Amino acid sequence: MTTVGILGGGQLARMLALSGAPLGLRFLVMDTAADACASQFAPMIVGDYRDEQALGEFASKVDVATFDFENVPAESARWLADRVPVFPNPHALAVAQDRLAEKTLFRELGIPVPDFAAVDSREDLEAAVASIGAPCILKTRRLGYDGKGQFRLRTAGDVDAAWRALGAQASTVGLILEGFVAFERELSVVGVRTRDGEFRSWPVTENWHVDGVLSASLAPAAVDNALAEQACDHARRLAHALDYVGVFALELFCRVGVLLANELAPRVHNSGHWTIEGSETSQFQNHLRAVLGLPLGDTRMLGHACMLNWIGHMPEASVVHAEPGGHWHDYGKQPRDGRKVGHATLRADSTGALAEALARVGAALGRDLQVAPVIERLGG
Amino acid sequence: MTTVGILGGGQLARMLALSGAPLGLRFLVMDTAADACASQFAPMIVGDYRDEQALGEFASKVDVATFDFENVPAESARWLADRVPVFPNPHALAVAQDRLAEKTLFRELGIPVPDFAAVDSREDLEAAVASIGAPCILKTRRLGYDGKGQFRLRTAGDVDAAWRALGAQASTVGLILEGFVAFERELSVVGVRTRDGEFRSWPVTENWHVDGVLSASLAPAAVDNALAEQACDHARRLAHALDYVGVFALELFCRVGVLLANELAPRVHNSGHWTIEGSETSQFQNHLRAVLGLPLGDTRMLGHACMLNWIGHMPEASVVHAEPGGHWHDYGKQPRDGRKVGHATLRADSTGALAEALARVGAALGRDLQVAPVIERLGG
Ligand SMILES: Nc1ncnc2c1ncn2[C@@H]1O[C@H](COP(=O)(O)OP(=O)(O)OP(=O)(O)O)[C@@H](O)[C@H]1O
Ligand SMILES: Nc1ncnc2c1ncn2[C@@H]1O[C@H](COP(=O)(O)OP(=O)(O)OP(=O)(O)O)[C@@H](O)[C@H]1O
Repeated sequence: MTTVGILGGGQLARMLALSGAPLGLRFLVMDTAADACASQFAPMIVGDYRDEQALGEFASKVDVATFDFENVPAESARWLADRVPVFPNPHALAVAQDRLAEKTLFRELGIPVPDFAAVDSREDLEAAVASIGAPCILKTRRLGYDGKGQFRLRTAGDVDAAWRALGAQASTVGLILEGFVAFERELSVVGVRTRDGEFRSWPVTENWHVDGVLSASLAPAAVDNALAEQACDHARRLAHALDYVGVFALELFCRVGVLLANELAPRVHNSGHWTIEGSETSQFQNHLRAVLGLPLGDTRMLGHACMLNWIGHMPEASVVHAEPGGHWHDYGKQPRDGRKVGHATLRADSTGALAEALARVGAALGRDLQVAPVIERLGG
Repeated sequence: MTTVGILGGGQLARMLALSGAPLGLRFLVMDTAADACASQFAPMIVGDYRDEQALGEFASKVDVATFDFENVPAESARWLADRVPVFPNPHALAVAQDRLAEKTLFRELGIPVPDFAAVDSREDLEAAVASIGAPCILKTRRLGYDGKGQFRLRTAGDVDAAWRALGAQASTVGLILEGFVAFERELSVVGVRTRDGEFRSWPVTENWHVDGVLSASLAPAAVDNALAEQACDHARRLAHALDYVGVFALELFCRVGVLLANELAPRVHNSGHWTIEGSETSQFQNHLRAVLGLPLGDTRMLGHACMLNWIGHMPEASVVHAEPGGHWHDYGKQPRDGRKVGHATLRADSTGALAEALARVGAALGRDLQVAPVIERLGG
């Protein structure tokens, strides 16, 4: 009997447990919140990730540990790794937690990135804005998520406002300035690498964000083969450089046909949720297979899929249930503004059928704006 | 928040809970055994189904109840149905629990059945063998499963042995004599019916049994459309007659192109396990949708699928993991002779590819005998 420990008990842990059950696995989740939604389907330890007693109890009960939450303190991950195998390794986690470290690594690996500069002081910020140019974005280096901890500068005149908003964090989580990329598309590659170094990826996905939060994903992305191969190649080199084990996502901007790496998510990723129904093997099961040293499952797609995120509250389920290729995912969370509470995946055999399903669902739920860019991309 | 209660906590309850989680459901399982495998992923009440206190606690905590186990006492189901909605209804359950009642209903509905006769005494048995002819099978009317409680009579001379084996049960669970059907194939229709009377079924499945226990299932069965439609039609009429709500299986023999009904399983069924990966919607999720009054999901197939049952102990998983269309299901049970401990589903886009995958898996696991009849049927 193998028990997989998961740090963080949100929807990612929940979907990992659900997809790992058929492998005969047991799970143990650790989270700071007693009502974390994974606890509905897996036993849980409630505790702070820095609490060595809680972490010690967790370590004593699991055979291997992994993450639902990328901001587990890197020291906690290292402490744990001295006691049980931890995948991805704490170094990879630490790099992915720091926008400066990850962008530096991307550049070292020859993966193009937007212009960026570390910002430790107001003078740094002024110099960085002068060299990178406006528009640009000031971001916290660590602990940002869903577009939080970001300030957009339209002109150099916004330096004051930007510093007022985030300056205090220069000495805590650190800051980075990035050139604003007027991208045509946002793409992601969800990849998986085994302990032996085997790498696979799912078809490249196109993503749409609203207010910095993922709103919709479409797979396969309508990009030419060369671009898709380049994206996968970037992901492969990155995974190799970090000796990464498990699933991760590489988020990319595409501008005039050139890919620029935005960030690395060191875990199963929201843009890979469509793999549950849209691929022979889901990102969740392949993450567990990689972490446990099992052979990877096939990552090919079954048709075309679009994932729609439900933020804040769940819409009316029956609309999606009534769709032939509609699949509903309610994370069992309380509604709350800005919270990811669920998603739906629509699967179809052709882009045309997918566009029609999206139009029906968008209209019935009053969410035409959410589905419109996807339908447009599908040529609908 | 809706809680679904499941009487019985085996692999069927486990797979119901896993596939119902994305609907935002909670589960409560009741079983007589504390280590029932569903309890790894759902809270459980341990108790006898006749214990009104345990059943009362169960009733007070669930919004709707259903079954993993068809031999829950019909009185317990009725007691429960006075307190919470129970699907399928206790009458349908009672009919399906009694081979005599179900065969009588089949016949009333114009669904052909093997010859049969009730056997209450040794004289009844002699008379029944004389009228039905040998070979024939003496079965207990109630509480049989996986071929248990059966005695095959090759000739009329076996009456003595048959009566010695099962006669004592004539006054407890009752007996029935059935003509032995020299069938060419065993088929099943897994169907689902909603509270509103909508009926859907998955493609007809062919099944192979070894020692009375399901060994392999193939979907879609290689039968002509007319036969498949007739099988579905039988299932539809049966569900309608019983006002059945939820998933069920109708097991059929096919002899010289004629279908004879064997039995009704009033629950999700082993011959429908392939629907997890092989269909747009699994039998498990559609059972829950029906029971909860939600729209049904699409029952169409994605390619071709073969399910292989693992009895007694789990074979080596990596062989199946390494198959592109291989899906592993370990029920988390202790190994034990004759116990269903797991299954694998192989999915492929063509019958040829499926046959090749089966040949590889059969060879690698030393289970050539288990896969051989399926490969032969696939024309491999
Ligand atoms: N340099 C940039 N140029 C243009 N747009 C950007 C840039 N950086 C971020 N964005 C926009 O903001 C979104 C969120 O940014 P980013 O991925 O850096 O934040 P995050 O908080 O880590 O979000 P998530 O966790 O959802 O990936 C991006 O998906 C993109 O739409
Ligand atoms: N009348 C019959 N003629 C020929 N074979 C039969 C007959 N009845 C049963 N069998 C064989 O025995 C197997 C098990 O019989 P049956 O379905 O009646 O038993 P069970 O204990 O209810 O099994 P299960 O629960 O697996 O369906 C059948 O699938 C078939 O292979």
